[in-house]
Amino acid sequence: MPGELKIISEIRKRARASTDVSVGIGDDAAVIKLCGERDLIACSDLMVEGVHFRLEWTDAEMIGRKALAVTLSDVAAMGGAPRFAMMSVALAGKLSPEFIDDLIRGMFDLADSCGVSIIGGDTSSSRDSLFIDTIAIGECPRGRAITRAGAEAGNDIYVTGSLGAAALGLTLLEQGFTLNDEQNKVEKERGIAIRKQLAPEPRLEAGRLIGESSLAMAMIDISDGLSTDLWHILEESRCGAIIHAEAIPIAECVMNLGEEMMIDPLAFALHGGEEYELLFTARPENHTQVFELFKTLELQVTNIGHITQGGGLHLERNGSLESLAPSGYEHMI
Amino acid sequence: MPGELKIISEIRKRARASTDVSVGIGDDAAVIKLCGERDLIACSDLMVEGVHFRLEWTDAEMIGRKALAVTLSDVAAMGGAPRFAMMSVALAGKLSPEFIDDLIRGMFDLADSCGVSIIGGDTSSSRDSLFIDTIAIGECPRGRAITRAGAEAGNDIYVTGSLGAAALGLTLLEQGFTLNDEQNKVEKERGIAIRKQLAPEPRLEAGRLIGESSLAMAMIDISDGLSTDLWHILEESRCGAIIHAEAIPIAECVMNLGEEMMIDPLAFALHGGEEYELLFTARPENHTQVFELFKTLELQVTNIGHITQGGGLHLERNGSLESLAPSGYEHMI
Repeated sequence: MPGELKIISEIRKRARASTDVSVGIGDDAAVIKLCGERDLIACSDLMVEGVHFRLEWTDAEMIGRKALAVTLSDVAAMGGAPRFAMMSVALAGKLSPEFIDDLIRGMFDLADSCGVSIIGGDTSSSRDSLFIDTIAIGECPRGRAITRAGAEAGNDIYVTGSLGAAALGLTLLEQGFTLNDEQNKVEKERGIAIRKQLAPEPRLEAGRLIGESSLAMAMIDISDGLSTDLWHILEESRCGAIIHAEAIPIAECVMNLGEEMMIDPLAFALHGGEEYELLFTARPENHTQVFELFKTLELQVTNIGHITQGGGLHLERNGSLESLAPSGYEHMI
Repeated sequence: MPGELKIISEIRKRARASTDVSVGIGDDAAVIKLCGERDLIACSDLMVEGVHFRLEWTDAEMIGRKALAVTLSDVAAMGGAPRFAMMSVALAGKLSPEFIDDLIRGMFDLADSCGVSIIGGDTSSSRDSLFIDTIAIGECPRGRAITRAGAEAGNDIYVTGSLGAAALGLTLLEQGFTLNDEQNKVEKERGIAIRKQLAPEPRLEAGRLIGESSLAMAMIDISDGLSTDLWHILEESRCGAIIHAEAIPIAECVMNLGEEMMIDPLAFALHGGEEYELLFTARPENHTQVFELFKTLELQVTNIGHITQGGGLHLERNGSLESLAPSGYEHMI
């Protein structure tokens, strides 16, 4: 069976160019030239029970919230501002009316908090799994959407926030930990990791401001893992990259729980998916402006390496270079 | 468990009014004021295996085609022109690469034939069923979207094409008939009904031209059945209606196969869903213009009754009035 990327590549081959479509299939979102000084950004994101979440690990409110969050994150990754959203939900008969109310509440709470209007959607029954497709419609200044294809040799590579906690949260859930017990320091750090997995905070303001400032040359949100998502930028921009192991911002909870859990914190930060942090490149002369922008946002941003002419993706560790394979998460079909 | 309408009503209550949203949740599609002289129309439609289709009744190409067709039909029902589409597909592991190729081809063939660009979507695996959510983005002249809420007492009620074949097709499929055998007249008529069910032709040009002409006061596409969809118009427009049994355009195959299959053709035409014909109301002084428009479209249109001040929905048959309950299809959750 072909993987997700294979299907997308088939669809991409088949898609006909339209003069109104600035960015089509294959980026975080599509960009449409409509009218006036703004471009329209549109995208959809699927969340399927048993593939993206398990009912026993989370609650309906967090499922609704996350379903919308990951789609809004795609608009942010284009440097746009999400404005409207729709959701299509197929509900299995086993779910209670309270579950459905909570699911809707989770979605609306996030939408309200970031000025997004829920304008429609569809509902259906489902024989078995819960299935949620969320659709976001946003906008950005005309011609200013930031794709995966704009990186240039010499660009610095930046990432927002810190990495690895969402993947650690998934590992903890798989090991049977929950959000309930947070008595001591270790339990609190487990809670931070699990919350990053179940209730990610998309970087909406950062995405919009990066778009408005025109500082970024290429951008993506980290949904598949830093190595895979950086690889997407390299493929689309036809260039290479070197990132520095010591520079990768590893989440504190991952550092602190790493030894006890016998995991490699750096591997979690490099390959862990569902972070919904922004990964972007910018010209070196804009270094100061990037840090000034994030200072006003009160959000951590880290320069983790730079774009090269070619040569694939490499990790510099202790003075030597090693080839870094994109080994993040791709849904298996 | 609450039905689909109950969920939509909950969501509607929660949705906050935004000045940019002309039409929100509860109509065929949402309408957004963006910029310039055009409004944006957006909607999504879910198709779930085992609920909306069965793999053994159809093929991948027809599934892909129908998934997009029903969503484009919603844009037509607002008097708009669909321009862009996205599809989110969750694929069960049992499906072959050929199935996926055919599904994509069915969708693209329809999109290409009506000038719609596929701009994005998402894919995922699914533990069990095939889920397809299609999203359409269209446009109409500013302020001219036709909602369900504009019908006025005295309006004539019109329906495009003829009714009942899609529901008959579903009955035939349930009885084990397929598209394969079309040797004689009866088999050919069964084929017509099954094709109307599996490969509906949305009335895209009619919808767009009705929108541009400003002839219709209220419009909806018949997805749940004439009685239910007319009821939606009456509820939103706060009025009643009388329709005439003799005027209902019953599909020829339904008339011809009715006796043999021991079904009531009128009941199929009144309550059968998934027709994707347009149902609209217009002022009586525009009667001639409506028929002239459909003459240029070479499409049948029938005046089936009129809107009343109130009093619910009635069927006039052989000179007497009977109350008509909306008994079309609502997906059971």
